Amino acid sequence: MASKNTALKLIILGGINEIGKNMVALEWGNDIIVIDCGASFPDDEMPGIDLVIPDISYLIKNKSKVKGIVLTHGHEDHIGALPYVLKQLNVPVYGTRLTLGLVEGKLKEHHIDTTRLERVKPSDTVKMGHFTIEFIRTSHSIADSVALSIQTPVGTIVHTGDFKVDYTPIDGEAIDLAKFAQIGQKGVLALLAESTNVERPGYTMSERTVGKAFETIFANAKGRIIVATFASNVHRVQQIFDAAAKFERKVCVSGRSMVNVIGIASELGYLKFAKGMLIDIDQINNHPNESIVVITTGSQGEPMSALARMASSEHKKLEIVPGDTVVISATPIPGNEKLVFRVINQLFAKGANVLYQDLADIHVSGHACQEELKLIHTLVKPKYFVPVHGEFRHLKQHAFLAESLGMPRENIFTTDIGTVLEFDKDTCKVSGTVTAGRVLVDGLGIGDVGNVVLRDRKHLSQDGLIVVVVTIAKEGGTIIAGPDIISRGFVYVRESEILLDEARELVKSILEKYGQNGQNGQKKFNDWGMLKGGIRDRLREFLYEKTKRNPMILPVIMEI
Amino acid sequence: MASKNTALKLIILGGINEIGKNMVALEWGNDIIVIDCGASFPDDEMPGIDLVIPDISYLIKNKSKVKGIVLTHGHEDHIGALPYVLKQLNVPVYGTRLTLGLVEGKLKEHHIDTTRLERVKPSDTVKMGHFTIEFIRTSHSIADSVALSIQTPVGTIVHTGDFKVDYTPIDGEAIDLAKFAQIGQKGVLALLAESTNVERPGYTMSERTVGKAFETIFANAKGRIIVATFASNVHRVQQIFDAAAKFERKVCVSGRSMVNVIGIASELGYLKFAKGMLIDIDQINNHPNESIVVITTGSQGEPMSALARMASSEHKKLEIVPGDTVVISATPIPGNEKLVFRVINQLFAKGANVLYQDLADIHVSGHACQEELKLIHTLVKPKYFVPVHGEFRHLKQHAFLAESLGMPRENIFTTDIGTVLEFDKDTCKVSGTVTAGRVLVDGLGIGDVGNVVLRDRKHLSQDGLIVVVVTIAKEGGTIIAGPDIISRGFVYVRESEILLDEARELVKSILEKYGQNGQNGQKKFNDWGMLKGGIRDRLREFLYEKTKRNPMILPVIMEI
Repeated sequence: MASKNTALKLIILGGINEIGKNMVALEWGNDIIVIDCGASFPDDEMPGIDLVIPDISYLIKNKSKVKGIVLTHGHEDHIGALPYVLKQLNVPVYGTRLTLGLVEGKLKEHHIDTTRLERVKPSDTVKMGHFTIEFIRTSHSIADSVALSIQTPVGTIVHTGDFKVDYTPIDGEAIDLAKFAQIGQKGVLALLAESTNVERPGYTMSERTVGKAFETIFANAKGRIIVATFASNVHRVQQIFDAAAKFERKVCVSGRSMVNVIGIASELGYLKFAKGMLIDIDQINNHPNESIVVITTGSQGEPMSALARMASSEHKKLEIVPGDTVVISATPIPGNEKLVFRVINQLFAKGANVLYQDLADIHVSGHACQEELKLIHTLVKPKYFVPVHGEFRHLKQHAFLAESLGMPRENIFTTDIGTVLEFDKDTCKVSGTVTAGRVLVDGLGIGDVGNVVLRDRKHLSQDGLIVVVVTIAKEGGTIIAGPDIISRGFVYVRESEILLDEARELVKSILEKYGQNGQNGQKKFNDWGMLKGGIRDRLREFLYEKTKRNPMILPVIMEI
Repeated sequence: MASKNTALKLIILGGINEIGKNMVALEWGNDIIVIDCGASFPDDEMPGIDLVIPDISYLIKNKSKVKGIVLTHGHEDHIGALPYVLKQLNVPVYGTRLTLGLVEGKLKEHHIDTTRLERVKPSDTVKMGHFTIEFIRTSHSIADSVALSIQTPVGTIVHTGDFKVDYTPIDGEAIDLAKFAQIGQKGVLALLAESTNVERPGYTMSERTVGKAFETIFANAKGRIIVATFASNVHRVQQIFDAAAKFERKVCVSGRSMVNVIGIASELGYLKFAKGMLIDIDQINNHPNESIVVITTGSQGEPMSALARMASSEHKKLEIVPGDTVVISATPIPGNEKLVFRVINQLFAKGANVLYQDLADIHVSGHACQEELKLIHTLVKPKYFVPVHGEFRHLKQHAFLAESLGMPRENIFTTDIGTVLEFDKDTCKVSGTVTAGRVLVDGLGIGDVGNVVLRDRKHLSQDGLIVVVVTIAKEGGTIIAGPDIISRGFVYVRESEILLDEARELVKSILEKYGQNGQNGQKKFNDWGMLKGGIRDRLREFLYEKTKRNPMILPVIMEI
């Protein structure tokens, strides 16, 4: 038993003040459990970066305490960092069947085969040190999602994971509201609830409504139907198969992640369709157009995705033709609008009819709107509330929502990445911070790209680069070769020869002046740092005056 | 009179398959008139670019024919390219009073003072060569907007400009629907109508509804109120002044373009407020918070805007404090969402209450939705229809809308930039294309940044740069200095010394191998291109294998 002075710590490691890389940890004495292990995608401020994962320095420092990682569902922002984290922290991973199915594929890609994967199902209970975790069925845009009810020595913590309230889910397994009510009856110390859709009034529509829209579209389409959606939305994919079956169309699949998830999901029994419905994309021309449905990735307009390749005529197996109906069954994630619209424009230009966004009811969110959030708050009746999964504006609106339900403002904690909250039976307070934040993955490098490298990349992208090279004699300081000026991304060189010639002359004159500064008329070139700084400053001024541009300037001095 | 064989040409120079840089030209015999002269903002594919303007090669080639430029209103996507175009094409510019007021400011900044500005008002008629242009009052998110009815030798062309149908406009001057009806009665050869909101069903709400929302907000706000909106939306600004007057608040203005437009608009009488309402931002602390309204730029989250500076504590005169209410009276333009949300998050974090988007009725669009477009089509009853101002998806949806009103599909022309349509009294056909497209403005350079420079900037931003420098003896090919390797934006150098050392050794071995390839054992280094190519290829392979990154590699060889 931990000492009387031990408090329960909640450590925020990700998913707060951002959308993505969700991760929190609970600590009691010598036990730590980690909830979710997500990655996020780079934004415009991180050029060249492939993936962003949480900084887990705190977990590494307390390695021996970590009992395991508990996953709420199989989306990238909940499992995407696992391969990177498990290489540093080989602990068991708990999740439902589909979640672990997706995790397995991911670990195989990264050649990780020593991880203990512990399969759980809703209503199961798992004991990890001083924590007892119960899994609660929820609805979300991926099957097999769960919320967590965690009994701790000071009370129960409920974590919703990502959820919506769907009374008519595709798999017939609705969110277990009775369980939330029952846990609430017994008393809950703190609720951690997701905030993605807290800005939206009302209710999120049932996934089933999308099926109805598909049926209308399938009933009217004359040629092929191509549906792009998130690969992991197994219920959406099921509804495409169902509509295809109803209208006697064969289904073919394009896009690596779609092929992958459909494989895993049908193997595990989450996706059901008649044998023989699925055809290989190579066979697509053996069937009449009106008998074909293509399910594809690319609903976010991702430049290398199958749909984007179809739109730009770069898809090897499928050419968009007039008469095709393309359904984009998704909403652009903020930041992706332009990519999605580019694909839509290209598809229209090829003669396809494109159904997207507001033009048809072909997508519903996977996240709870305001009324659903109120339902969960009301059932769980927590003493304290910590909004999670959202930018600051979401957390704030979620705090307003909790207040509107009667929770005292001082019982709501809007936190930050690195924040540590300390609970005992009756209190909650911010007790400090730990090292936390983002780690950038770029190619094989994990964490080797930081602010300096990003700043240089941004600078280079804005106005390009000027390299100044000169070879100088160590003795006497004579210029032996150069100065040469090489530019990239600055101006179109062939049309700017005069400008670059003038720049070269300027550098020459600086070199000569510096050379004359030595004692006894002896040229003195040994303070390279100063000389380089001089070249950089004068050249920057000159180029800015001439062009109002500010390229990166790299002076290189070779001494012989 | 032009010969019988002369046809009317419509030349598309911008605003088609894009949002922005609107410009079309009409040509008959020796007469060309240009409608609008807009700029657009660079997208993610154009790093470092300041502005994009239309390629006017065709107009330059036919300089002597160009009779003038006619403006529909004063937004950047209709007047932004004027300073650049007028430098090459000094022709008179026709526009309404506020439009020319804004143009004058713009020309002054560019030191252009020889342009003849011809002020017109709605219902005026102007003759330019064989064209007679009538200006028709419309409603839009800037005052003094007009549509054009252009009589040509083969019939009337109607161009809507940007518009909405507002029955209760702030200035009391509603769109002149009777005039559209009257022109339609007489017969219209072709309609060019804007397509921005064609995806939206129903009607755009009246600007006046925003005033009601402001009143509710002003009635409830306890501290300062800070409203961000587009500077050019004079009616929106008027409503902020009106609400301020009603609730006895002083108004202060922040942001260069806001100060500028409010100056011009109140000078010209488009903006009316009691003397003494306006205070300088330096006086802001001389008044109690509950007596202050700040009108500011930055509704799109632009990083250097006044609101963004307030949000990041970089504004010199104004610090956001708890109790402030910030109203973002605008919708993010696609692509700007992340910038806007960043500002909102920062403002919330400083304790402000932020009202934005769907959370309050604090913005209406300036563009016609489907029912308004149908109204104009129905009144104008054109023989031919050319959708303008939109990406391809908009043009396509607008074509569908026209078809749904009974127009034959073959009478609708979805065009492209550079397309030339030829009209006579009874026919319309695509007759060819002219040189047209985009010209990039970067600092003082106009058109000197093209695809090569942009490609280099993008490459540099993705994985950075490696410069390899070596000095070699012309005779004998000995390495005299180097090779040195300099990297920027690639890896964090201090942690990658081994990698860069290995790269240096690799380059050395390549240099030595190339050197040995000469005849008679004599080193031969004169094929620099081949040597550089070799270094680039081998180094690229090496670095990709080690890092899965692909930096730009610049080999520089100095010969002495």
